[in-house]
Amino acid sequence: MPIESLVPAYTLPAENRRVILKNRPAGIPQPTDFALDESAVPQPADLELLVRNIYLSVDPAQRGWAVGGANYIPAAPLGGPMAALAVGVIVKSRHQDFREGSFVYGWFGWQDYAVVGPEKVLTRIGIPRVKLSAYAGILGINGITAYLALQMFGRLTQHETVLVTTAAGAVGSTVGQLVRSAGCRAIGLTGSDDKVARCTGRFGYDAAYNYRTADIAAVLADIGAIDVFFDSIGGDVLDLALRQMNVGGRIIQCGTASIASWTPPPLGLRNEREVLTRRLSWHGFVIFDHTGKFDEAVRSLEAKIIAGDLVYDEDIEIGMDEAASAIERIYRGENQGKKLMFIG
Amino acid sequence: MPIESLVPAYTLPAENRRVILKNRPAGIPQPTDFALDESAVPQPADLELLVRNIYLSVDPAQRGWAVGGANYIPAAPLGGPMAALAVGVIVKSRHQDFREGSFVYGWFGWQDYAVVGPEKVLTRIGIPRVKLSAYAGILGINGITAYLALQMFGRLTQHETVLVTTAAGAVGSTVGQLVRSAGCRAIGLTGSDDKVARCTGRFGYDAAYNYRTADIAAVLADIGAIDVFFDSIGGDVLDLALRQMNVGGRIIQCGTASIASWTPPPLGLRNEREVLTRRLSWHGFVIFDHTGKFDEAVRSLEAKIIAGDLVYDEDIEIGMDEAASAIERIYRGENQGKKLMFIG
Repeated sequence: MPIESLVPAYTLPAENRRVILKNRPAGIPQPTDFALDESAVPQPADLELLVRNIYLSVDPAQRGWAVGGANYIPAAPLGGPMAALAVGVIVKSRHQDFREGSFVYGWFGWQDYAVVGPEKVLTRIGIPRVKLSAYAGILGINGITAYLALQMFGRLTQHETVLVTTAAGAVGSTVGQLVRSAGCRAIGLTGSDDKVARCTGRFGYDAAYNYRTADIAAVLADIGAIDVFFDSIGGDVLDLALRQMNVGGRIIQCGTASIASWTPPPLGLRNEREVLTRRLSWHGFVIFDHTGKFDEAVRSLEAKIIAGDLVYDEDIEIGMDEAASAIERIYRGENQGKKLMFIG
Repeated sequence: MPIESLVPAYTLPAENRRVILKNRPAGIPQPTDFALDESAVPQPADLELLVRNIYLSVDPAQRGWAVGGANYIPAAPLGGPMAALAVGVIVKSRHQDFREGSFVYGWFGWQDYAVVGPEKVLTRIGIPRVKLSAYAGILGINGITAYLALQMFGRLTQHETVLVTTAAGAVGSTVGQLVRSAGCRAIGLTGSDDKVARCTGRFGYDAAYNYRTADIAAVLADIGAIDVFFDSIGGDVLDLALRQMNVGGRIIQCGTASIASWTPPPLGLRNEREVLTRRLSWHGFVIFDHTGKFDEAVRSLEAKIIAGDLVYDEDIEIGMDEAASAIERIYRGENQGKKLMFIG
């Protein structure tokens, strides 16, 4: 059956537009680090798939993939499409396990088409049970990070206090709701008054604070001892939060977004005495270590969405024309929900 | 039965000599922070014990107990005997669970006699199976720390590499031997060439280095990725070691001895990116959280000592005349093995 009849809604462009990584940035990637190009649509070899991307994901973690150096995945290659996650549809399959017309989520890069082996597929969506875009956000690495990191390292018991940075973001907005549904208190830190309102009004937070305007030291002293710190930013806020942790507290380190550059390594307060005297357990969490648990997480989160127990916001722009500034823009906190580029 | 017939070897002094904590030090306690005094032997009330101390323990952790502030036990009170662990014999018991003439290890302070409730007893030695002094060191918090911290947070599998600071010390010398017996590679850092020789010749270390003379950055780059870092010193060595950890590595923070004062908190390299990208688990370990496991640990370590599979060194001085400088001296690394004062 020709692919057009399987996915009639999708135009299949004749060329492959790509957002090329030109330079290896020192910190947050800038527009000058990227270039747009166009080339022929690649063709899959035996055991490969041709994926037509529909939603391209924009993630803070792309900073690290672009910068390279010691990190958890190999650096995004220069001269190729920027390493990125995407939701797409299989338009040609030369692998018996993958059906044409089936939706997938994985490492497909910032481009119209990707030729990939099956190892690049993170989730086989098949037929979407909720909106397709959700599979690139709350049902992608963002929501799955919230779900698995809490499950593996949060070890929540009722009535505990959980502090969350980037609380209105794609990960944090899910964390808040999962924390509340576990019978715990969620406290959010986020970057605007509007986001504060969404945290408490929409994402399950008992309280939230704007770290651009609030006195975070005073806020943290006020909220009482923190049992779990779900942190994606590091830096001064981390140093302050460590000094308010409860004995036996858990810190889940999911990112270090507040630090603009790690070269040279910046200085901060020494934290080993806090780890010791408060008997903290401080865990680094990288979602790609846990791909074997993605299906379970997606099924669980899908069920909550369908039941109306889990909401999410998206900030979708059309096309990839503005991709070169997209990472920089999410570091400035301009997005209102999970940032995606719709190119289908 | 009169106590003299039960423990004929021990002279029972008529007065209680005490090493009083006079001032709250900012960092490592100095001789001027203590005073010796003498007072009447106290008498136990109902449900209390009178313990005649035999071995007084000198521990790096006493620094924190003297300094006070946020810590894991209440600050040692000013004007009272310095908070300390000791091995003693019960000379009067007004508690039915404790027999006179029985040996005990616990929070008895730097003094000849302690009147304590049963909650101050950490280990009921009863009749010693090995030398009595061992129960204040390798069978006290030092050896038990090595045993339980490795068991709870080391999660060793064969052929892993374990880096240990203060490797020739009362904790580290036990860690090395336990690591080797688990089929893993133990690398020690210690403060003199003589201690290096004892680490490799006596305490199971595959290699050891003098951190006063070796280029630790080069050493760490050389030994390969570290799976477990058993750290009692913190500071620059910690920062270096974190940058050589294997993915999934574990850090056991048992002390921060290299930092002379925490007021104000000193600066160091920011470490959250290492925690994240290397997926570390960094645990604070305070032995007093695990008193429920002491008996199991003591039985296991006793068996190894009796079998000749576990050795230890002691550095015992007679009397408590030099107690005022004892903590400072162990921070200078002058002791050759577990530091005790014999006053029996």
